[in-house]
Amino acid sequence: MLSGVATGGGGAGSGGASVDLPDFGDVVDAHDRLRGHVARTPVLGSPRFDERVGRRVVFKCENLQHAGAFKFRGASNALLQLEAARATASGAGAGARVVATHSSGNHGAALARAAAAIGWRCIVVVPHDANPVKTAAICAAGAELVTCEPGLAPRETALAEVVARTGAEVVHPFDDSRVIAGQGTAAMELLADHPELDVLTAPVGGGGLLAGSALAVRGMLPSCRVVGAEPEVADDAARSFHGGVRVGMPGSPPTIADGLRGSIGVRPYALFRRHVDDVVTVSERAIVEAMRIALEDLRLLVEPSSAVPLAALLAGRIGAPGQRIGVIVSGGNVDLSVCPFLAGDPTPSH
Amino acid sequence: MLSGVATGGGGAGSGGASVDLPDFGDVVDAHDRLRGHVARTPVLGSPRFDERVGRRVVFKCENLQHAGAFKFRGASNALLQLEAARATASGAGAGARVVATHSSGNHGAALARAAAAIGWRCIVVVPHDANPVKTAAICAAGAELVTCEPGLAPRETALAEVVARTGAEVVHPFDDSRVIAGQGTAAMELLADHPELDVLTAPVGGGGLLAGSALAVRGMLPSCRVVGAEPEVADDAARSFHGGVRVGMPGSPPTIADGLRGSIGVRPYALFRRHVDDVVTVSERAIVEAMRIALEDLRLLVEPSSAVPLAALLAGRIGAPGQRIGVIVSGGNVDLSVCPFLAGDPTPSH
Repeated sequence: MLSGVATGGGGAGSGGASVDLPDFGDVVDAHDRLRGHVARTPVLGSPRFDERVGRRVVFKCENLQHAGAFKFRGASNALLQLEAARATASGAGAGARVVATHSSGNHGAALARAAAAIGWRCIVVVPHDANPVKTAAICAAGAELVTCEPGLAPRETALAEVVARTGAEVVHPFDDSRVIAGQGTAAMELLADHPELDVLTAPVGGGGLLAGSALAVRGMLPSCRVVGAEPEVADDAARSFHGGVRVGMPGSPPTIADGLRGSIGVRPYALFRRHVDDVVTVSERAIVEAMRIALEDLRLLVEPSSAVPLAALLAGRIGAPGQRIGVIVSGGNVDLSVCPFLAGDPTPSH
Repeated sequence: MLSGVATGGGGAGSGGASVDLPDFGDVVDAHDRLRGHVARTPVLGSPRFDERVGRRVVFKCENLQHAGAFKFRGASNALLQLEAARATASGAGAGARVVATHSSGNHGAALARAAAAIGWRCIVVVPHDANPVKTAAICAAGAELVTCEPGLAPRETALAEVVARTGAEVVHPFDDSRVIAGQGTAAMELLADHPELDVLTAPVGGGGLLAGSALAVRGMLPSCRVVGAEPEVADDAARSFHGGVRVGMPGSPPTIADGLRGSIGVRPYALFRRHVDDVVTVSERAIVEAMRIALEDLRLLVEPSSAVPLAALLAGRIGAPGQRIGVIVSGGNVDLSVCPFLAGDPTPSH
């Protein structure tokens, strides 16, 4: 792991501070560590989708990962390292085997499930406007919930209180090198199966998935372009990437892609600047249409966040005609009752 | 292959005649023949679904097969044998490389795609009330369409006319030993991955999938029970199986499971009598609910026909609590516009 790298740019609280950043070796280590803990998800293709977009596309199906999202990789990688550190610590310093985080969804469920698997207690701070399907999944996985007001500041305050009360270790959803390295293992598996890709793409929320994926690409297939996709109404990563200054999203942007409402993290931003080639944006209408097309062409339920790179592909925004494109399908946790077209409404309000 | 086996029972046109029947060796041969031609589809599980049904369930995802259904296996197995026979025939007897069938959907698309892959012309007789998504898939795969009135007699008449006009070889959707053996290869793959199953289940329309699956089970894991699932309103296989006389469905039964509207074939019926342990039925409402649960728990779009065994599992009709159940998820070709809950209507009319 590289240490002491200046993130540059400042903005959104980074202040130009130095942070540790993961490198390709950390992704390789994560892959070894996660063997037997995470599912090697299938890679699928669709001639019908290829025809629509004029490219040859393969989909790494993290919607079929344990807990229904790639987040299980990063959460497990962090937690397994915490457990290993505890095992080597002396008795008194071994800690209480409690982990905590704040999450509006998939990361919380993933951490809860990973914690349950190794006998840790897990506490998740959840904003009260979170997707109820995801909140239910966090509870079902055995975590304790602490609810708070929406927004980053109330979440961090509530989490600090949990840590003060319980001595919990914190695993941040994306601004954590162990988490980023773990997320990169999905791209590692995809590149092992498809070493011919011209472009790899993934959605961008906090940026952990695309940052980890970019590390895998640079280590395994440097010629491959890495392109992120983001909702137009939550375009902080695109503005940060193209502007050269990390900026955040104020409040909770009105995108159906509930996994992408947060702002890009310090570490992901620093890795984007080094390893990512482009970040593109798509409309809300295009996201919903891409969800429907994923159902029709791939027979897969993808969550709105995962439909974002598909929407960009359908708009011709990723790669060139004839190129081979790899997509990380990030998750499949959908509240069927609020998804517009699943509820019979083809025109989303945004 | 066993030959000259009396099917017994008569009814629905079998008249107690002798027909050739495939055996386990034919399934093994099919598996060898199909290598590189069909996809080895993934096997998925869902802790949430397991909890709902109190059993440990694995799903063999033929909805992710080429052309979106298991039918590609049987169609390819038949066509590859036709091509091999043609290659060894003398010049004059080598035939015109034309294949034909009648199909309301998946078999037609599968045969069309398999034919295109080896350069054969394909003609498909389709009733005019067929699922338009499936008809479009047949055209997209390069087949010529001939439309006819619904019902078995008009379909067979139209097909006979096609054969007289073109000299086409016929590949029946289910009453063909080559097709049955090919369909059994999905269960072979599932049993190779999961040799611990207590029960294997699949939907029953013409019966080719369950018959082929039963051959695989008897050859690989004789202790495993084989259970078919069928819509209540298209229960000809259940009545035939339990009554000991093959009976057909008059007309087109009003089930949303459009792949299961046909009657059980002569060969499948004979194989059911030898190798199948039970056939259970489910309501239309239960089928639609099972489709929704497959989306939520498995993140998979399954067609209504494929939801039938899931509905039976959800009703506690298959296996016992704690048992390990394998399900062949037969296909994923769904017309989103007519699926009740995808169109926002949770209460089907039947």
